[in-house]
Amino acid sequence: MERQDKDLAWMLQFDNIAWYEDGKVRILDRRIYPIEVKFVTCTDHRQVAEAIRDMVTQSAGPYVAAAMGMALAAFECRGRTESEQVEYLTQAADTISHARPTTSKRMILITQACLREAKKGLAEGMSDVSELVKEHAVWQNNARYERIGVTGKYLAELFPQHGAVMTQCFAETIVGMMLREARKQGKDVRFFCPETRPYFQGSRLTASVISDMGFDVTVITDNMPAFVMKNEGIDIFTSAADVICGDGHIVNKVGTYQIAIAAKYHGVPYYVTGAPDLGHPTINTVRIEMRDPSFVLQAMGTQTANLNAHGYYPAFDITPPELVKGVVTDIGVLSPYELGSYVHETEEILV
Amino acid sequence: MERQDKDLAWMLQFDNIAWYEDGKVRILDRRIYPIEVKFVTCTDHRQVAEAIRDMVTQSAGPYVAAAMGMALAAFECRGRTESEQVEYLTQAADTISHARPTTSKRMILITQACLREAKKGLAEGMSDVSELVKEHAVWQNNARYERIGVTGKYLAELFPQHGAVMTQCFAETIVGMMLREARKQGKDVRFFCPETRPYFQGSRLTASVISDMGFDVTVITDNMPAFVMKNEGIDIFTSAADVICGDGHIVNKVGTYQIAIAAKYHGVPYYVTGAPDLGHPTINTVRIEMRDPSFVLQAMGTQTANLNAHGYYPAFDITPPELVKGVVTDIGVLSPYELGSYVHETEEILV
Repeated sequence: MERQDKDLAWMLQFDNIAWYEDGKVRILDRRIYPIEVKFVTCTDHRQVAEAIRDMVTQSAGPYVAAAMGMALAAFECRGRTESEQVEYLTQAADTISHARPTTSKRMILITQACLREAKKGLAEGMSDVSELVKEHAVWQNNARYERIGVTGKYLAELFPQHGAVMTQCFAETIVGMMLREARKQGKDVRFFCPETRPYFQGSRLTASVISDMGFDVTVITDNMPAFVMKNEGIDIFTSAADVICGDGHIVNKVGTYQIAIAAKYHGVPYYVTGAPDLGHPTINTVRIEMRDPSFVLQAMGTQTANLNAHGYYPAFDITPPELVKGVVTDIGVLSPYELGSYVHETEEILV
Repeated sequence: MERQDKDLAWMLQFDNIAWYEDGKVRILDRRIYPIEVKFVTCTDHRQVAEAIRDMVTQSAGPYVAAAMGMALAAFECRGRTESEQVEYLTQAADTISHARPTTSKRMILITQACLREAKKGLAEGMSDVSELVKEHAVWQNNARYERIGVTGKYLAELFPQHGAVMTQCFAETIVGMMLREARKQGKDVRFFCPETRPYFQGSRLTASVISDMGFDVTVITDNMPAFVMKNEGIDIFTSAADVICGDGHIVNKVGTYQIAIAAKYHGVPYYVTGAPDLGHPTINTVRIEMRDPSFVLQAMGTQTANLNAHGYYPAFDITPPELVKGVVTDIGVLSPYELGSYVHETEEILV
């Protein structure tokens, strides 16, 4: 029991990365975590959008931040007329949901759900719906926990009794849930985490969560996955996804595609966790974000290259369905070619 | 002419990374170059072996350092009897050539050639053969220049008129020679260099040489090669090798294998430059060095991971011949399956 409580504490720490209270949204700064634990405090929903854009929060964090940002927007326009508030919140939903292009479709679902909730309260004569929207944000998150818990169980069931699993930029709730379930199932699994340049999410976040939860974890550089598959007997490669398109294309942190190619070459199955994204029935609607190229010319703040060299920084890459063995969802493991069979009960919790 | 002189100056700078003079070998510290230009000064051949082991010099550098280290050893035992000097130098050759396991076979060829040269001088009654051995080291290096110049020409001939080339941890003479030849041939080529963690040789060295020689160069992180092949139209992937086995297996900086797999998947040909290694007729005699694992848990001196995580650091990986389109040598481009046709005229210059 104690162990499991600790697990839950970890998940909460990773998920309560954005929290609305008293006219402020506080966001855990994942760019420096776990070297330092610092928070960015936003007093305006536009600052929340900026924080999302600037990668203060990552993985599923932007979805939580977006909902909490809507609560903040409601606080900002409290006391105005109903129509003024609706107009203000409609604008806020637009601003927040377009902070990062790749995830905007899902962000729209989330902020629109918050907007609907706000409208209900306003129609009932409330003058300040910020707490109401926050309650909805918490509900969204709890529904997400529940769904991801089931997903983690299905993922852990794919692990061998004693085995090795490779991840890519894999943190947040799903790692915690996966490890809890692996422990429940008595699986003795060790993990290899590529460091995930240029932000080092793999070494800083994924590896930290795994080691803090008491599992064996090895950090490797991003040029080692094929070597490790060849020499260390990797049983499964797994990652979450920023977008799972209806046609089975996976949009995830840059590097996923390359590891999936290496996995195919070595006969290692690649399982991605998450739910198909209603906003992207095919890959054609996905635009890959290109980020500040100079970021690739440094590491942890130290310059690494001659400044006459260019940098190049696609945030995500696209893995085609032929490289994906299965999509692990809350209703089971689906083929990437049969994602149409996934039924969405509540759109806005699919995060 | 001016441009070409500048090219040559660059090559010399990169190659005169080890130089014997007045009882000292001075080695350019490639672990920090080009952020800082510092030298490690050795006053004993054992320190040269340590510098080779500690990665002070890299790529073809250890071969130059080994020969210059033999000149230093000759200086150390000068004035003793002929048999004492032969014994001392035999021991020194053994120490130096085993400083790094992966390259030891070629190191043995080089140090044994220096030893033969020393013996000749001693047999003629010389009491100090250090300058004689140094002259031989310089001769080895010049012969290498000549051979690599021809190799660079064959490599540049493979480039399209306007194209994009991906490299991996590729510096030293071959880059300079390749670029000189590309310019002579009027090729307009841009380069993509993976940064090559954990030492960043790609961003620090390869990209610096290429940009300093006036070519367009883009640094990418090690998780981006597949994305770049897919989206930027890479025409050729090329690297040098630490060992080219007679059976066509390529031993090179970790990451090469993974990029070669991605290249195969995208139909991009992989060409490796160098000469087959007589000491390794098959891959079975190659032992991959595992280096200090903690080095993977930092970047440019800053910690990146929770210290409960393990590190993992294979220096090299092995690319099988099925992923190699051709081996570019000084006698032309060979199939990896026909390396037996390569005739070695002078063993010790094959570096």
